[in-house]
Amino acid sequence: MKATLQQIADIIGGRIEGDPDTVIQGIAGVEQAREGDITFIANPQYIPYIDRTGASAIVCSPEVSAPSKTLLKVDNPYLAYAKVIRFLNPPARESGQIDSGAFIGKDVRLGKNITLYPYVYIGDGSIIEDGVTIYPHCFIGNNVTIGADTFMHPNVTIRERCIIGRRVIIHSGTVIGSDGFGFAKDGAAYYKIPQLGIVQIDDDVEIGAGNAIDRAAIDKTWIKRGVKTDNLVHIAHNVSIGEDSVVVAQVGISGSTQVGNRVTLAGQVGTVGHIKIGDDVMVGAKAGISCDVPAGQIVSGAPHMPHKTWLKASRSFEKLPDMRKTIHRLEKKIQELESALETLQGSKS
Amino acid sequence: MKATLQQIADIIGGRIEGDPDTVIQGIAGVEQAREGDITFIANPQYIPYIDRTGASAIVCSPEVSAPSKTLLKVDNPYLAYAKVIRFLNPPARESGQIDSGAFIGKDVRLGKNITLYPYVYIGDGSIIEDGVTIYPHCFIGNNVTIGADTFMHPNVTIRERCIIGRRVIIHSGTVIGSDGFGFAKDGAAYYKIPQLGIVQIDDDVEIGAGNAIDRAAIDKTWIKRGVKTDNLVHIAHNVSIGEDSVVVAQVGISGSTQVGNRVTLAGQVGTVGHIKIGDDVMVGAKAGISCDVPAGQIVSGAPHMPHKTWLKASRSFEKLPDMRKTIHRLEKKIQELESALETLQGSKS
Amino acid sequence: MKATLQQIADIIGGRIEGDPDTVIQGIAGVEQAREGDITFIANPQYIPYIDRTGASAIVCSPEVSAPSKTLLKVDNPYLAYAKVIRFLNPPARESGQIDSGAFIGKDVRLGKNITLYPYVYIGDGSIIEDGVTIYPHCFIGNNVTIGADTFMHPNVTIRERCIIGRRVIIHSGTVIGSDGFGFAKDGAAYYKIPQLGIVQIDDDVEIGAGNAIDRAAIDKTWIKRGVKTDNLVHIAHNVSIGEDSVVVAQVGISGSTQVGNRVTLAGQVGTVGHIKIGDDVMVGAKAGISCDVPAGQIVSGAPHMPHKTWLKASRSFEKLPDMRKTIHRLEKKIQELESALETLQGSKS
Repeated sequence: MKATLQQIADIIGGRIEGDPDTVIQGIAGVEQAREGDITFIANPQYIPYIDRTGASAIVCSPEVSAPSKTLLKVDNPYLAYAKVIRFLNPPARESGQIDSGAFIGKDVRLGKNITLYPYVYIGDGSIIEDGVTIYPHCFIGNNVTIGADTFMHPNVTIRERCIIGRRVIIHSGTVIGSDGFGFAKDGAAYYKIPQLGIVQIDDDVEIGAGNAIDRAAIDKTWIKRGVKTDNLVHIAHNVSIGEDSVVVAQVGISGSTQVGNRVTLAGQVGTVGHIKIGDDVMVGAKAGISCDVPAGQIVSGAPHMPHKTWLKASRSFEKLPDMRKTIHRLEKKIQELESALETLQGSKS
Repeated sequence: MKATLQQIADIIGGRIEGDPDTVIQGIAGVEQAREGDITFIANPQYIPYIDRTGASAIVCSPEVSAPSKTLLKVDNPYLAYAKVIRFLNPPARESGQIDSGAFIGKDVRLGKNITLYPYVYIGDGSIIEDGVTIYPHCFIGNNVTIGADTFMHPNVTIRERCIIGRRVIIHSGTVIGSDGFGFAKDGAAYYKIPQLGIVQIDDDVEIGAGNAIDRAAIDKTWIKRGVKTDNLVHIAHNVSIGEDSVVVAQVGISGSTQVGNRVTLAGQVGTVGHIKIGDDVMVGAKAGISCDVPAGQIVSGAPHMPHKTWLKASRSFEKLPDMRKTIHRLEKKIQELESALETLQGSKS
Repeated sequence: MKATLQQIADIIGGRIEGDPDTVIQGIAGVEQAREGDITFIANPQYIPYIDRTGASAIVCSPEVSAPSKTLLKVDNPYLAYAKVIRFLNPPARESGQIDSGAFIGKDVRLGKNITLYPYVYIGDGSIIEDGVTIYPHCFIGNNVTIGADTFMHPNVTIRERCIIGRRVIIHSGTVIGSDGFGFAKDGAAYYKIPQLGIVQIDDDVEIGAGNAIDRAAIDKTWIKRGVKTDNLVHIAHNVSIGEDSVVVAQVGISGSTQVGNRVTLAGQVGTVGHIKIGDDVMVGAKAGISCDVPAGQIVSGAPHMPHKTWLKASRSFEKLPDMRKTIHRLEKKIQELESALETLQGSKS
């Protein structure tokens, strides 16, 4: 890599204070950076290091002042860092070729510049738009749509009729469109309720490794624009997840639950079915969401409660044995007081 | 779809009140249904809607009375609904062909009307009975038996010697027969104990997506008739799960635990190993089962307790900080009382 | 199987008391064993059965005394059992052949005696050392290294540039090297931070089924020598796990957390990111590790606390409703005492 500071500013925006022709050859932490490196101050606690850094340029927020240094001031240095990292490390270019070892069913519509690796299976009637990349051992069922520039890592399963948006990334081992878990009691046994719906995944979603996202009983399970899921997430039938929500590893969302926009579900959270989690809700790790959560709340615990309440209650939890002892001691003292008082009352009458 | 009410009654049973030749062309909710639709009243709260529905026929339980309407009375309207849904939406017919892109080992016994997709691998000595369907990227190890009419979705792994029953459905990404987690300490390190047993899955079982069911150390891990598992379930070596039990998503069952018949384990439950969970037990979401559970109990919590106890205790949990404050306040008051009483006693003596 | 006791002693070590030419034809529990069987006493509670056993030889610890029996005394009878089991049941010999149905990219370096099954994909520039076995539907990305004698069960994904050690076993459905979960906020939306690092797995590691182990943002996610993971484990980017640690099923370890040597994380444990878990720590099932844990501690609960504290507090948890009632009752009594005392004080003044 070799770029001028101006070229980097063209990518990440911001205002240069210093020489725009400064040559940048690498990226490093503020303490490690040397001549030719660019560094990023995303955390205010590192501002004091600016004077001492050897970096040739520093990306920082607008309020930083360091007249002796070459600065590139941006509103969001962490985002700028991510963009420079991607600029310096562009993903490997795919071949744009369809390998002869891929299987393509009947009536498949293929766009331009599609990369299909060996052992890819595309079912009948599917539509693969321009620029899609599908790695080995992926299964695309019949009548699936895969939007432009979507990237499927090895060993992904997309069942029949599901709809995947544009610029979606799906990681390995993930299953999209497995049957929802629906059965009707038939005496002691269970009768399978056909799961006739689909999964729809909108643009710019990223789905982690080993997820299982079930198709709807009817209609659709819906993962909306910009959602990011981590690994080993379970999403049941007819769930919807709103735009730009984040679902951390090993979360399970039960059937028909509606998750709002910009929600964060931390690791190992579970929810019951048929509830609404409002916009901008944050759910702490391992919480069990047992009923609706209004927009904007921060909750934790199982069953969930306001996060601050849970924090305080959790701190008290380990005091429980002491509390029991204290209560027992107080009971005794009260008995003693009662006796003493009776004695006094007796002596007085 | 077009069927007379009599044809539907032939499928789901029940008694018609009204014209058996009523023509049914669709299925809809009681509020949305119109001329030509059949609707189902599975939940008593919808009975009041019967008078207003536009449906041409109503499936309901025997106690419903609506003389002006055409009724089909059944004992279990929800089951009837499931059966009509399946009747109206029969699964796509599979080809009954063995694709030339499937790999079939030596000495494999293949029944009639088997569908094998490209990239299916069948190991040596395996037996595939009549009517089996195996989707792409499934692996069947050596000497496996797959019972008649079993359906394997894409990307399922069945390791050597496992036995799969009839009419079993296995969803994508699932692994049957991985090695049990068994090691003997060898100094600081661990020595792998060979896992010589198998997994046996009986008839009419359905296994969700992304499950991992380990083979036994010796003998078998046993999933009995009619069990249904949801997604991302872990079942350790030598576990047995009784008939018609239901294992919800992300449950983990530790080694050698015996789960009874008709048990329900809700989402994200975990159990220790070597215990017995009796018939008809219900375990609440996220519970941690730490010892035997007698038949018929309903339990929750980690470690588990009777569900009602857990409900009450959970409601008290968020009161813990208040309780601590109250206890502290009571302690002070008691001290004050003690002082006052001493004063009184002193003044009296 | 047919071996002399001496041959068995040659495998497991130990000292024979009795005839080293005793012929062993099978292995059985102490109660079931008959002439020709060898049995193992790993648990002291079975020592009383020695006198009655029909076994021809007994493997036991040095302190056991049974002059009328043929004994093989070893320090660790359970380890000896595992070794004999493996001796009697050697794994099936693999072909050492590369199937023509495997795909091998450009510039792949293949050692000797490698077994590649059909539908294996090996990316460009990868190195596969001697004695490696790779089952169907495994994906090995570009520039991966797989160490000697490593065994990959069907349907494993190893992404580009990852490094797998020697004698590693990886179970089906597992994904090594998926992108870490890293995003920078870009307004309401998220911008993907490239995950440029790798996963490095050292010698003698065994990874269970359905694991997801993410590649590092930079540098490496590191699973050190001898680690064993159970099924459905999630390991985030930049985590390191120390030698001979054990990670039980459905554990999730968040980003950049460092797990020490010989640590045990029981089932369904979760940890926050960026913490250190010291050597020899044991974490109880379902615990939520919320901050650093010093070496040698035993902890449980979410958030975690010393295991003994958690045990006591958990036992008190179901008493919470009783405690609240008692506190309420004590409050009333104290009010009554206060009134009575006031009356007394009044009457006295």
